[in-house]
Amino acid sequence: MTAHFVNDPAALVPEALDGLVGGAGPSRLARLDGYPDIKVVLRADWDRADQGRDRVAVVSGGGAGHEPAHAGFVGPGLLTAAVSGEVFASPSVDAVLAALLAVTGEAGCLLVVKNYTGDRLNFGLAAERARAAGLRVEMVVVGDDIAIPDTPAPRGLAGTLLVHKVAGALAQSGAPLDQVAGAARRVAAGVRSLGISTSGADIPGRRSEQRFVDGNAELGLGIHGEPGVETFALGRDAEIVDRMAAALTDALPDGGESGVAGGDVVLLLNTLGGLAPLEALVVVRDLLATPLGQRARLLIGPAALMTSMSMRGFSVSALAVDDELARALLANCAAWTTWPGARELGSHDRLRVLPVPTLREAGKVLASEDTAVRAALTAVTGALIDAEQALNALDAKVGDGDTGSTFAAAARRVLSELDVLPLADRSALFARLSELLGSAMGGSSGVLLSILFAAAGSVGSAGSTGSTGSVGSAGDDAPLADALAAGADAVQRHGGAGEGDRTMLDALLPAVRALRDGGAAAAAAAARSGADATGSMEQARAGRAAYVGGQHLRGVVDPGAEAVAIAFAAAAAHR
Amino acid sequence: MTAHFVNDPAALVPEALDGLVGGAGPSRLARLDGYPDIKVVLRADWDRADQGRDRVAVVSGGGAGHEPAHAGFVGPGLLTAAVSGEVFASPSVDAVLAALLAVTGEAGCLLVVKNYTGDRLNFGLAAERARAAGLRVEMVVVGDDIAIPDTPAPRGLAGTLLVHKVAGALAQSGAPLDQVAGAARRVAAGVRSLGISTSGADIPGRRSEQRFVDGNAELGLGIHGEPGVETFALGRDAEIVDRMAAALTDALPDGGESGVAGGDVVLLLNTLGGLAPLEALVVVRDLLATPLGQRARLLIGPAALMTSMSMRGFSVSALAVDDELARALLANCAAWTTWPGARELGSHDRLRVLPVPTLREAGKVLASEDTAVRAALTAVTGALIDAEQALNALDAKVGDGDTGSTFAAAARRVLSELDVLPLADRSALFARLSELLGSAMGGSSGVLLSILFAAAGSVGSAGSTGSTGSVGSAGDDAPLADALAAGADAVQRHGGAGEGDRTMLDALLPAVRALRDGGAAAAAAAARSGADATGSMEQARAGRAAYVGGQHLRGVVDPGAEAVAIAFAAAAAHR
Repeated sequence: MTAHFVNDPAALVPEALDGLVGGAGPSRLARLDGYPDIKVVLRADWDRADQGRDRVAVVSGGGAGHEPAHAGFVGPGLLTAAVSGEVFASPSVDAVLAALLAVTGEAGCLLVVKNYTGDRLNFGLAAERARAAGLRVEMVVVGDDIAIPDTPAPRGLAGTLLVHKVAGALAQSGAPLDQVAGAARRVAAGVRSLGISTSGADIPGRRSEQRFVDGNAELGLGIHGEPGVETFALGRDAEIVDRMAAALTDALPDGGESGVAGGDVVLLLNTLGGLAPLEALVVVRDLLATPLGQRARLLIGPAALMTSMSMRGFSVSALAVDDELARALLANCAAWTTWPGARELGSHDRLRVLPVPTLREAGKVLASEDTAVRAALTAVTGALIDAEQALNALDAKVGDGDTGSTFAAAARRVLSELDVLPLADRSALFARLSELLGSAMGGSSGVLLSILFAAAGSVGSAGSTGSTGSVGSAGDDAPLADALAAGADAVQRHGGAGEGDRTMLDALLPAVRALRDGGAAAAAAAARSGADATGSMEQARAGRAAYVGGQHLRGVVDPGAEAVAIAFAAAAAHR
Repeated sequence: MTAHFVNDPAALVPEALDGLVGGAGPSRLARLDGYPDIKVVLRADWDRADQGRDRVAVVSGGGAGHEPAHAGFVGPGLLTAAVSGEVFASPSVDAVLAALLAVTGEAGCLLVVKNYTGDRLNFGLAAERARAAGLRVEMVVVGDDIAIPDTPAPRGLAGTLLVHKVAGALAQSGAPLDQVAGAARRVAAGVRSLGISTSGADIPGRRSEQRFVDGNAELGLGIHGEPGVETFALGRDAEIVDRMAAALTDALPDGGESGVAGGDVVLLLNTLGGLAPLEALVVVRDLLATPLGQRARLLIGPAALMTSMSMRGFSVSALAVDDELARALLANCAAWTTWPGARELGSHDRLRVLPVPTLREAGKVLASEDTAVRAALTAVTGALIDAEQALNALDAKVGDGDTGSTFAAAARRVLSELDVLPLADRSALFARLSELLGSAMGGSSGVLLSILFAAAGSVGSAGSTGSTGSVGSAGDDAPLADALAAGADAVQRHGGAGEGDRTMLDALLPAVRALRDGGAAAAAAAARSGADATGSMEQARAGRAAYVGGQHLRGVVDPGAEAVAIAFAAAAAHR
C-alpha cells in the first residue's frame, strides 16, 4: 500500500480541516463543533457587522479528497462556509443544514453543489429544510463535465470553482440573492470541463488503484477515480491538448452574449494534485496555442484547486466571458488557499534581445602591446605546456590523471591568442584571460581559474576603486598582488576551499602574499614551499581528492598546487 | 516509462518557460532571446522608470524541475529575473551573465544561489565577470539543508525562497544593495530545512526511479532525487513531523535577536510536487502541534514552491523571525505563481457551537390535534403497511424488491409519532414528516420524500408568502395542492427526474394537479391512472430501474408510483 502522510485514515478529514483552521490567521477561519459528523469550515469574521450576515452567504462542499476545494476557498470574496464529507463521499444532510443555519442571515444564501446524486440529494434536502425553517436559500447545481456525451447528468468538475468565484465576488460586493444566484446559474450553464490523468486516485487506508498502465493516460475521467471514457498511450502533449480544446469548443453553448466562435473565454487549468508543475507549464503553452487558447481573455492556473488526491493529471475548463464576468473573476478575494488569480492575457512583446552585444562591446578592447607582459605570459604558458606529462602523472596518483592536460590546453589557447590580447591593460587582460580559461579549460578548475582572473580583472575596473596598470611592470608589484589577492579571495568564496584544504590555493595564497613585499622571486619561493606542503596533508577537503583516503595522499603533492608553483617559477625566472 | 505531459523531452524546459511567459499578463514577463542555451525569464516592466533599474535587482535560478521556482517567482517584490538550466542541471555561466547584464542598473544586483557545486561555480563566475564589466553584484549562497550532519556544504532547499522573499521585498522598497544583501545573508545564515518523500523524482525521458518501496519514506533527501539519509516504513504523520521539527529546532542557530529557545519562527511548508493537498493539511496540523510549531509566528504554505518534479513529499523550513523579517515576509508581491503569502498565527477561538439548538428550537412545535388530519394519516399509513408485500413483489421484477418494506417502515414510524405531531399546523407537520422520512426511510426515495415534505412545509412558512392551514380540511384543497406542488417541484429539481421518466412522479404530478380543482377523489383517480401508465414506459431515466432493460419493464408498474397511488386512494377513501 502506498505510504501516506496521515495518522489514522478514519480521522483523516477532521485532522486535515484542523490543520486548515489552525494554520489560518487569527479571525480568519473557524469550524462548527460536531466532529466527526459535522465537518463545516466557515469565515470567522462572518458575524462582524461590517463583514457578514447582511451579505449573501455562499456555501459549497462535497466529498473530501479535492482539497483545497472547498474549505481552502473560505474567505472574503469566495465562500462563506464549506461542508466536507469523508473522502469522495457526500456530507450528511445535517452537516449541510448546520452550515446553512450558521451563516445565513437576512440576505439569504447561495448553495453551490456539484452534480453527483449524493450531493444533489443531501444538499437539496438541507436547502429545503433551511427554507422550511424560514431561511432564503437558493441552490445551483454544476455539471460541467463533457466527457460522457448526452448524459442527462454531467458531473461537476473544476468549473464549479468559477461559479464560486463569480458568486463570491458578487456577494462580497453586496449584491442581492437573486443577482448572486443569477450570475452563478449563468456560469454553471456556460462552463465546460474535461479532465485527463496518467494515474488514479490513491486514498489513504485503501488499496492503490491498479488500473493504470505505465505510459497510458485516461481522458474524460472523473475526480473520484472514475475510469476515463478513453484510454490510450500518451503521445505529444500538444496533440492531446488540441483534442481537449476542440472538444471543449464544440461543447460550449452556442450563441449568447459572447458569440458562437471567436468570443472571449476564460480558461481554468486545474491540476489534480500530483502533476509536476514543470509539466503543467508545458500544458499552458500547448493550450494557449490552440484555437480555444487564442480566444482566452483570462487564464486561471495552472494550480491545484479541485484535486483528486494526488492524481497526475489536469482538467481544462472553458467559459465564455464578458466584462461583467471578467470583473467578478478578477475581483480581490482572500481565502486560505491563495486563489491563483485570473490573469488578463493579451499580446505584448515577450522576447528581449540578449545583452550579449553589450557584453561583447564591453569585452571588445583593442589588442595592445607590452613586451614584459608578453614575455611573462610566454614563459608561464610554456612552462605549463612542458609540465603536461609530469602533472598528469602526479594527478594519476590521487585523481583521474588529467590535470597536466587541462592546464596545457588552457596554456596553448592563451598562447594562440597572444597577438590579440590587451597586454598593456591589466584589467582588460585579466577579463579576457577569464573568458579564455572558462571556455578552453574543462572541469571545476577551469571555472575556478576563470573566477580568479575575472575577480582579479575587476580590481581597477569601473566596478572597483583600485588603480589600473600593467601586469608585468617591474618595481611595484603591489597592484598586481592586490588584483591576484582579490582573485584568490573569489576562488575561496565560490569554491568553498581555503588554505590547508590541499588545493591550488595552498600554493596561490602564500605566493600572492609574498608578491606584495618580496616581488616575483619571493612569490615563486612561497608557491613552491606551499605546493610542497600539500604532500603532507592527508585530508583533502575540496576537489576530487576529497574522496581519496589519506594513505593515498601521503607524500603526493597536489597537482593543482604544483601547477601554480610551476607558473610562478616561470614568471620569476623570466624577470 | 511513466507517462508525462510533454512534447519533446529535450525541449521540455524552453517549452515550459514559454508557457509561463505566454500565460503571464501583458507587460508582466519577458524572456531573453537565446534558446536553448540562454533560459532567462525577467520582469517585462523592469525598464519602466518607475519600476526598475534604479532599484536593486534580485536574480536567482538553478536547474529546472523545481517549478514554480524560480521563474514562477519573477515579479514585483520577489525576483527580477530567473535563470534556468535543464532539469536538475545548473545553467551556464553565459546564461547567468546574460541575466545580470539584462537587469542590473546603477543600484546593483543581488544574486541568490543554492549551494550546489555547479550552481556555485557558474553563478560565481558570472558574478565575477559582471563585476569585471563594471556592475555591482553581490552574491549569497543558501545551504539550508540539515539532513547531512557536519557537512561543510549543506544543500540549498526551499529555505532559499525565504531569502528571495526578504531580498525582493527590501529591493522593491528601494533599499540599497548593501542592505538587501545584508538581509539576504542574515536569512541564509539562519534558515534550516529538512525534506521527506515517499517517492523519487520522475523525469520525462528518463527511466523512473525504482528506489522506493511502497510504504517506505526517505527522510533528509535532496530535491534532485538524491537518496535520503534514512529510509523507513512510514508510520503516523505526527511522529515523523515531530522528529523533523525537533531536528530543525536543534539545528537553528543559537542566540541572535530572537533568543535560543522560545523565540518566534516562520515556518515554510513546501510540498515537492506530488503530495496530495489533503495530506499536506494533516502535516500542517501535526507541525503546529510540535514545540517548534508552537513558536510559529508566521506560516507559509503548504504550497508547491520548490518542487522536485512530482515527488510525494514535503520539506519544512524554519527561521527565527523578528519584526523586520516579518514585515518583509508579509510584504505584498506579485509573481506569476501566486506567492502563498505568510499568515500570522495567533490564538483565537476557532470553534463555533453548532446551530443545532436553534434548529431544534425551530422544530420544537407543540403537538396539536386535528381529527381529520389524524384520520387521513392513519388511513394512508395503514394502506402502505398493508401493501408492503405487494409492493415488494412488484419491485422484485425491476429492482431489489424492497420498495414495500421501505414505505412500510416509514409509515410505521409516522404512526408511532402520531400523538406528538403538530396535526393542526400544516407547515410544521410537513417539516416534521420530512425529518421522520429522512431518518426512518432508507435510500434515495427516503431523501426524495423528505425533500418533498420539506419543500411542501416551507409553503406558508416564514420563508414563503403562502397561507398556512390544516392538511385535511374538507372544502378548499388549493392550499394543500400548492404545498404538494412545491414539494413535487423540489423532488424534480433535486432528483433530476421528470414526468414520463418512470418514477413516483408519474403518479404524484397528475394527482397534485387534479387535487386543486377536483379534490381528493380526482387526485386519487389521477394517481392511479398515472401509476398504471408507467407499465408501458420501457425506458426508465432515473432511479435504479434506469439500469434495467426495457423488456423487463414492459407491463410492470413502477413500484414508487404504485405506492403514491395507494396513498392517494387511501386518503380519498377516508374522506
